Amino acid sequence: MKTLPYDKAKIEEIAKTHPTPFHIYDEAGIVAAAQRLQRAFQWNAGYKEYYAVKACPNPAILRLLHDQGCGMDCSSLTELMLCERLGIVGEDIMFSSNDTPAEEFAYARRLGALINLDDFSHIDFLKDNGGIPETVCLRYNPGGEFRLGNTIMGNPGDAKYGMTRPQIFEGVKVLRAYGAKRFGLHAFLASNTTDNAYYPSLAAELFQLAADLHRELGVEIAFVNLSGGVGIPYRPEEEPADILAIGRGVREQYEKILVPAGLDHVAIKTELGRYMTGPYGSLVSRVLHIKNTYKQYVGLDACAANLMRPAMYGAYHHITVLGKEDAPCDHVYDVTGSLCENNDKFAVDRALPKVEIGDLMAIHDTGAHGFAMGYNYNGKLRSAELLLHANGEVELIRRAETPADYFATLDFTHLF
Amino acid sequence: MKTLPYDKAKIEEIAKTHPTPFHIYDEAGIVAAAQRLQRAFQWNAGYKEYYAVKACPNPAILRLLHDQGCGMDCSSLTELMLCERLGIVGEDIMFSSNDTPAEEFAYARRLGALINLDDFSHIDFLKDNGGIPETVCLRYNPGGEFRLGNTIMGNPGDAKYGMTRPQIFEGVKVLRAYGAKRFGLHAFLASNTTDNAYYPSLAAELFQLAADLHRELGVEIAFVNLSGGVGIPYRPEEEPADILAIGRGVREQYEKILVPAGLDHVAIKTELGRYMTGPYGSLVSRVLHIKNTYKQYVGLDACAANLMRPAMYGAYHHITVLGKEDAPCDHVYDVTGSLCENNDKFAVDRALPKVEIGDLMAIHDTGAHGFAMGYNYNGKLRSAELLLHANGEVELIRRAETPADYFATLDFTHLF
Repeated sequence: MKTLPYDKAKIEEIAKTHPTPFHIYDEAGIVAAAQRLQRAFQWNAGYKEYYAVKACPNPAILRLLHDQGCGMDCSSLTELMLCERLGIVGEDIMFSSNDTPAEEFAYARRLGALINLDDFSHIDFLKDNGGIPETVCLRYNPGGEFRLGNTIMGNPGDAKYGMTRPQIFEGVKVLRAYGAKRFGLHAFLASNTTDNAYYPSLAAELFQLAADLHRELGVEIAFVNLSGGVGIPYRPEEEPADILAIGRGVREQYEKILVPAGLDHVAIKTELGRYMTGPYGSLVSRVLHIKNTYKQYVGLDACAANLMRPAMYGAYHHITVLGKEDAPCDHVYDVTGSLCENNDKFAVDRALPKVEIGDLMAIHDTGAHGFAMGYNYNGKLRSAELLLHANGEVELIRRAETPADYFATLDFTHLF
Repeated sequence: MKTLPYDKAKIEEIAKTHPTPFHIYDEAGIVAAAQRLQRAFQWNAGYKEYYAVKACPNPAILRLLHDQGCGMDCSSLTELMLCERLGIVGEDIMFSSNDTPAEEFAYARRLGALINLDDFSHIDFLKDNGGIPETVCLRYNPGGEFRLGNTIMGNPGDAKYGMTRPQIFEGVKVLRAYGAKRFGLHAFLASNTTDNAYYPSLAAELFQLAADLHRELGVEIAFVNLSGGVGIPYRPEEEPADILAIGRGVREQYEKILVPAGLDHVAIKTELGRYMTGPYGSLVSRVLHIKNTYKQYVGLDACAANLMRPAMYGAYHHITVLGKEDAPCDHVYDVTGSLCENNDKFAVDRALPKVEIGDLMAIHDTGAHGFAMGYNYNGKLRSAELLLHANGEVELIRRAETPADYFATLDFTHLF
């Protein structure tokens, strides 16, 4: 069952000030998700969620999550800059990147961020560009396939991320020789899974690695970073992940593996993005056209420039026709944008109530990797972002692009 | 065989002023393509190519093509604005869009652009938003599958574009009643094909429709717009389209169908993008990292933010390691960018010469749908665009994005 934190009347009211299309985020939902997650891991003294900034790099969202005790997982220069402007610095930042430019390591070090090293070669690269910190994290890639039971959840062996087990061991030795005193371990083995066994299974793998490193090299393990991967149910019939069960599952492994290894002080870190904000954003768009040819088409004022996941991944996003929530879904439409590319369809063969020109549609679950993946193909402009506060007030938290923004990098040509 | 209009020394020289990554376009190649195309259709008095602006919406490229006699195929407000600033107006613009907003029709009409109507419902919509012009084009969609011999080239019946045959007939009647005097016909049935039979086969279908309309309704057919679809060989072993043979093939159908129907004055229009500029652009990037885990990885300073086709379509783009053109390709790499997404790979399992940190790579065929499809995911910035003039001089034709550009739509927050 898919719900929305607003009704048609509310959106019509908002649209008087903020023309469609826009992404709108639900403060109450985001705060509740952050609090659920904190509850799930409150058994762990050093637990901290580092929100994956890439999922929704809006300062208002980051501030909201920071106020809930979250740090920020940054992957690039501009994400670091965004955090710095918000006063989020030091170990409130986890810099988890790959193929990292030198200046980004230096910038992250200057902010005092925790550094998560993706590759063995990055050890010397970081030493030369910012220097080795006392606490440093290493990203592990176990290779092969990652399975839960009989299901292949991911293919770490084909992923560009992380280090092999021998590299982790050698890396810790080298880093220690360079002055590092405390170590974190990180891995990302599956994306967007609602399987409650994922985090516990990943945790077991990392906990065992931590225990082995501690036993064999005598090093201090400061934290285990479970990264992201806990997903959300995009389809109404899917079950959400049970984050409290997930927290308990991780705790079981913690007590089974880490505590007996003398590692009962290890902090758990997470880098969730989708779980934190994905369900608490939606793209609101108005129907411009209805088209009947070999199929029936609904043409929106939004397009893949505003939400690329359906075009790039064929991803499902649920759609609600506002004001027709209770009408029977007895029509079938392709819901399209205006890009000159046939993959610009928010939905294909979607059962919906009868749609009319002027209807408002809410495309669900755009709170993560929605606006953030927007592009300007066909010269299309990216939309505004709004925050629906818990008290019902609506705040503009990013203005819509204008043609002037689109032409900004031509400013020196005197055409614009 | 893949060639480049520069060598390593030239790029090292350019990189002193313009840091990598950047797209660089080859003026001589673009001009030659435009001239080849004109030659292929010089048998047709009214022939005009309308360059698909979406392929490379840079004013310097548009001006270059306009100087060669090309018009511009626009699909959005900002593309229309770009043409207007360049003084490209009137029937030098073909406005071929779908799911079109009202203000874009009005804007196109104000510029005197030729309008290509995607849908039957757009007739009244245009009437109310800009008005019906004396010459107007209708986009045809024959439905079903489009085949050349036994090969399925496209699935028009699943495409959101165009009108059915009955809608075209009815549309022409309605438009005539609204004052339209001359008609164009347009269809797009296959994307990026190098099959020389595509345009002639498409032309035959549109010519027959034109002849039927002329015979049954007595209307004047001003032009047939063959749209885009003529592709390029991304892989070195592929044969390029033979545009002269294609022009001859279209002429054969013209003489077979249109001339006997009394339509010997019909102009041919094309809307090629990829064919015109695709092969004459490349993305130049420097190797930041070499990584060895379960595979060997080359990490570039470019990423999918600069070129999305491999990530979105799994598209092949040829890669040349500059200065190692003659070295044996005896190493196998995944060539990656720095996005925190595992599809950010310019190549997977690509045979290349031994690559070293600091090497320059040219990723071929980025002159169309390259820069234009760039995004800012992970907070990554889009690159500069350079034009390599025929005389060897290099001109900056778009500056690289800066963090200030990335944060521009937050300007009202006083954070930036």
